[in-house]
Amino acid sequence: MATESQMKNPLLVGKAIRAQLGHEIPKDLPLKRDFRERTDYTITDHVNQLHKQLAPDPRTLQLFTSLVNHLHAFCRETKLTHSEWRTTVEFLTRAGKESTDFKNEFVLLSDCLGVSALLDELNHPKPEGCTDSCEEGPFYTTDAPEKPSGSSVAGPNTVGEPLFFKATVKNTKGEGIPGVKAEIWQADGDGIYDVQYPGRTEANDRARIVAEPSGDFNYRGKLPTAYGIPDDGPIGDMLRALGRHPHRSSHIHFMVTAPGYDDLTSALYPSHSPFLGTDPVFATKKSLVCQLREETDPAEWKKMGFKEGEVDTGRVWVWTYDFVLPTIQEVEDLKRRL
Amino acid sequence: MATESQMKNPLLVGKAIRAQLGHEIPKDLPLKRDFRERTDYTITDHVNQLHKQLAPDPRTLQLFTSLVNHLHAFCRETKLTHSEWRTTVEFLTRAGKESTDFKNEFVLLSDCLGVSALLDELNHPKPEGCTDSCEEGPFYTTDAPEKPSGSSVAGPNTVGEPLFFKATVKNTKGEGIPGVKAEIWQADGDGIYDVQYPGRTEANDRARIVAEPSGDFNYRGKLPTAYGIPDDGPIGDMLRALGRHPHRSSHIHFMVTAPGYDDLTSALYPSHSPFLGTDPVFATKKSLVCQLREETDPAEWKKMGFKEGEVDTGRVWVWTYDFVLPTIQEVEDLKRRL
Repeated sequence: MATESQMKNPLLVGKAIRAQLGHEIPKDLPLKRDFRERTDYTITDHVNQLHKQLAPDPRTLQLFTSLVNHLHAFCRETKLTHSEWRTTVEFLTRAGKESTDFKNEFVLLSDCLGVSALLDELNHPKPEGCTDSCEEGPFYTTDAPEKPSGSSVAGPNTVGEPLFFKATVKNTKGEGIPGVKAEIWQADGDGIYDVQYPGRTEANDRARIVAEPSGDFNYRGKLPTAYGIPDDGPIGDMLRALGRHPHRSSHIHFMVTAPGYDDLTSALYPSHSPFLGTDPVFATKKSLVCQLREETDPAEWKKMGFKEGEVDTGRVWVWTYDFVLPTIQEVEDLKRRL
Repeated sequence: MATESQMKNPLLVGKAIRAQLGHEIPKDLPLKRDFRERTDYTITDHVNQLHKQLAPDPRTLQLFTSLVNHLHAFCRETKLTHSEWRTTVEFLTRAGKESTDFKNEFVLLSDCLGVSALLDELNHPKPEGCTDSCEEGPFYTTDAPEKPSGSSVAGPNTVGEPLFFKATVKNTKGEGIPGVKAEIWQADGDGIYDVQYPGRTEANDRARIVAEPSGDFNYRGKLPTAYGIPDDGPIGDMLRALGRHPHRSSHIHFMVTAPGYDDLTSALYPSHSPFLGTDPVFATKKSLVCQLREETDPAEWKKMGFKEGEVDTGRVWVWTYDFVLPTIQEVEDLKRRL
């Protein structure tokens, strides 16, 4: 133990600490039991005890205790080597350095390890029978124009095969919901979003559709095709090291809202699209996969709102879905039970 | 299920994927059971099953399975919110961006959560009675000069109070070890390493001491004082959020080697130094803490090798330690048992 005079000796701490603390060296916590006595006191206990004594609020303590427990358990389980640790440090450093405002590698990491999908599930639980949610993804914008049901959302130059999308929006009792707005955003027939084209001047392939009072809505557009998540950074390397690909199934994003109902952010996938079982971001839930139909009768195209000669591929892809939204109250009740 | 013609339709995938895969869309894995059926199939199972089917080697699979299990368990345990997730993404991105060749924030993160100390313990287990190891730290250099036992390691301008360090190096049978070299590196009396001074032209306060054939060695230098780890980045913010400080106890680093014996990388701490119980990097193991003695007799200073008038503080700090090294064979045997 230090004597009083030793404890007061400013030479015990360096210049920088002296400048910061002056001569008042704070009383230290007593040295813990040696955490090398493996049988009853580990370094994990040591770290957690320190946080327990010092952390200023219970949530910080809870988060770091759980983090330390799992990080340490991971190291113990895998007997992580020094060279693997070094590779991890380099990987994470690169992920930070290569992130931009338009592509964050840590968001991709979270997505590709199923963390984003899990958090969506934990934070947006859905009562039985309601449409599942999935991640918003990086292509949402706030400038989608509001349009009535029955509109076309394709831009004048949007490439792709004609699509007719038709939905109902009901509550858990099977009743149509009034006041529904369905914001949709999707890639075009080349698997490219409007924001990915240089010189974008207005929103295309996205709209805030105002549904009928019955909750039904439909729109015309182009069938989206599959595209990949960015794989030119460390997360792309990680996917390759795992034998995985970066390709997502084609899909349409939806944000469906109605007064008194829980907002739904989700996406729908055509059953004919490849990569459904190997989605890099784990968002292709079975309940969101839809069987599409090819309509080849021009009389039907006309009823859908297509103009004479507009369909030049001999078919319109018909995509239907029945959304079921829980009330805000139903979700609150569910969260309380979970 | 997709029809043959649908699967062959290149319009199902976007331009970028078509360019990459041509018309050969690979067969996808069958869609897993819906992982929303919480009771028996979770997203964690889903991610792990995918890796099990695709990962090219068993070690990659083992690392990612353990990682996914622990990451997901952390999210479930803490019910991590979207805003906490966003804070984490921003924290990690900043850690990457603010890392330099001289200060890696992810190394600091690993150190400050006890991960580095744990990995040192897992990768360098020590048989009973042997000197504990601890992390090398960021201040090791390869240009320390070789000097015989009894040398001074302080530079001509090194600040600090006089120090006399004296050690024995023995094996587990209590026998002195021949052929010992003890590389030491330490901060000066201001808590600053030679490499931290601008315009460093040669190594100071570091040397590769060649021990006596008995394994004993000693050197003269200056008493190191406490200094802080870098806390100007996100890891500093993390420490503050946890109520922790960045100050390390003063210490001397050692790398002790001898033919046939397991290399020891460690550090020793004076018991009078503050911050022993709250070390930010969890390296102050009880077995490495030493009781120092103040020698005030000038006749003793002379025996230690100090020149007339060199000690102008009225005291020499005397620091002794008995190192115990295991043989390479003893460590191999231990690793096999762990």
